[in-house]
Amino acid sequence: QGASRKAPPIESKLPCTLEEIYKGTTKKMKISREIADASGKTMPVEEILTINVKPGWKKGTKITFPEKGNEQPNVMPADLVFIIDEKPHGVFTRDGNDLVVTQKISLAEALTGYTVHLTTLDGRNLTIPINNVIHPNYEEVVPREGMPLPKDPSKKGNLRIKFNIKFPTRLTEEQKAGIRKLLNA
Amino acid sequence: QGASRKAPPIESKLPCTLEEIYKGTTKKMKISREIADASGKTMPVEEILTINVKPGWKKGTKITFPEKGNEQPNVMPADLVFIIDEKPHGVFTRDGNDLVVTQKISLAEALTGYTVHLTTLDGRNLTIPINNVIHPNYEEVVPREGMPLPKDPSKKGNLRIKFNIKFPTRLTEEQKAGIRKLLNA
Repeated sequence: QGASRKAPPIESKLPCTLEEIYKGTTKKMKISREIADASGKTMPVEEILTINVKPGWKKGTKITFPEKGNEQPNVMPADLVFIIDEKPHGVFTRDGNDLVVTQKISLAEALTGYTVHLTTLDGRNLTIPINNVIHPNYEEVVPREGMPLPKDPSKKGNLRIKFNIKFPTRLTEEQKAGIRKLLNA
Repeated sequence: QGASRKAPPIESKLPCTLEEIYKGTTKKMKISREIADASGKTMPVEEILTINVKPGWKKGTKITFPEKGNEQPNVMPADLVFIIDEKPHGVFTRDGNDLVVTQKISLAEALTGYTVHLTTLDGRNLTIPINNVIHPNYEEVVPREGMPLPKDPSKKGNLRIKFNIKFPTRLTEEQKAGIRKLLNA
């Protein structure tokens, strides 16, 4: 008779950068496992598993290599499961298929005009001039500059630009008088 | 032998305004219930239950009137349980022992000075001049103007004043030039 029981799956995280998930990447994972011969004697082997991370894959996506765990008598080897995880990115955070970025700007920039400069996850330079007054909840949405959709990577989510407006910590009486005159006109 | 089972408690909400919880109040609740005589015959009666809501009581506080449910043969009457609930207030929200209020102000007011006028839950007028520049996350904390502490109502939480700064929707080129000059000086 063959193996009657199966060992529980062995799960491990597969950390990927947002760049890797944006473009898709191939990860080679070297694993060590025990294999058993007909007599039940085991010996260690090393194997390379290849994972094709597709553009736009979500955190939590599982890739299963059936029965790649250690072999032991009377037990079916465990499945090896890799779970996609996102490494934190210095500029972008992911929200579903959207990318979100927060720009720190001064109050003067918020009021008088600001141009956003960003480098995309595939290395292109974006220039986004904003002509509106930028208020604290303002969000500039750039279509199709988010993450690729896993089902159709030619389509993309949005890039959403938020703003953290740095107010002056204090103003002189002259500045206050000037602002009153300018804004209450 | 007496009643061997007890009916499950009957819970109902007791909505209170923040003013009532701030000052404490007495609620009279008229209930109708069936009472049974020795023969098991039941008849309806009305009762008035009195609940002393103490200053600072929290939402979720339970007041139990043991065995004030309907009487039936062989069953102990249910407990009546009232659960304190807070009615939404037009000005204040409660956060633990603190009161939180959001004031809508203009950008000019945020930058040049603003005085908060509020009526407390016990009807006093508060005047709080703010001399700092008010930025979007600014919070003015007024000690001891929050909710009374249930264990010692002579002590109180804080009043926290937040601000929703209304930015101008558009500015003329002249206004922008003036702001650039004033703020980048």
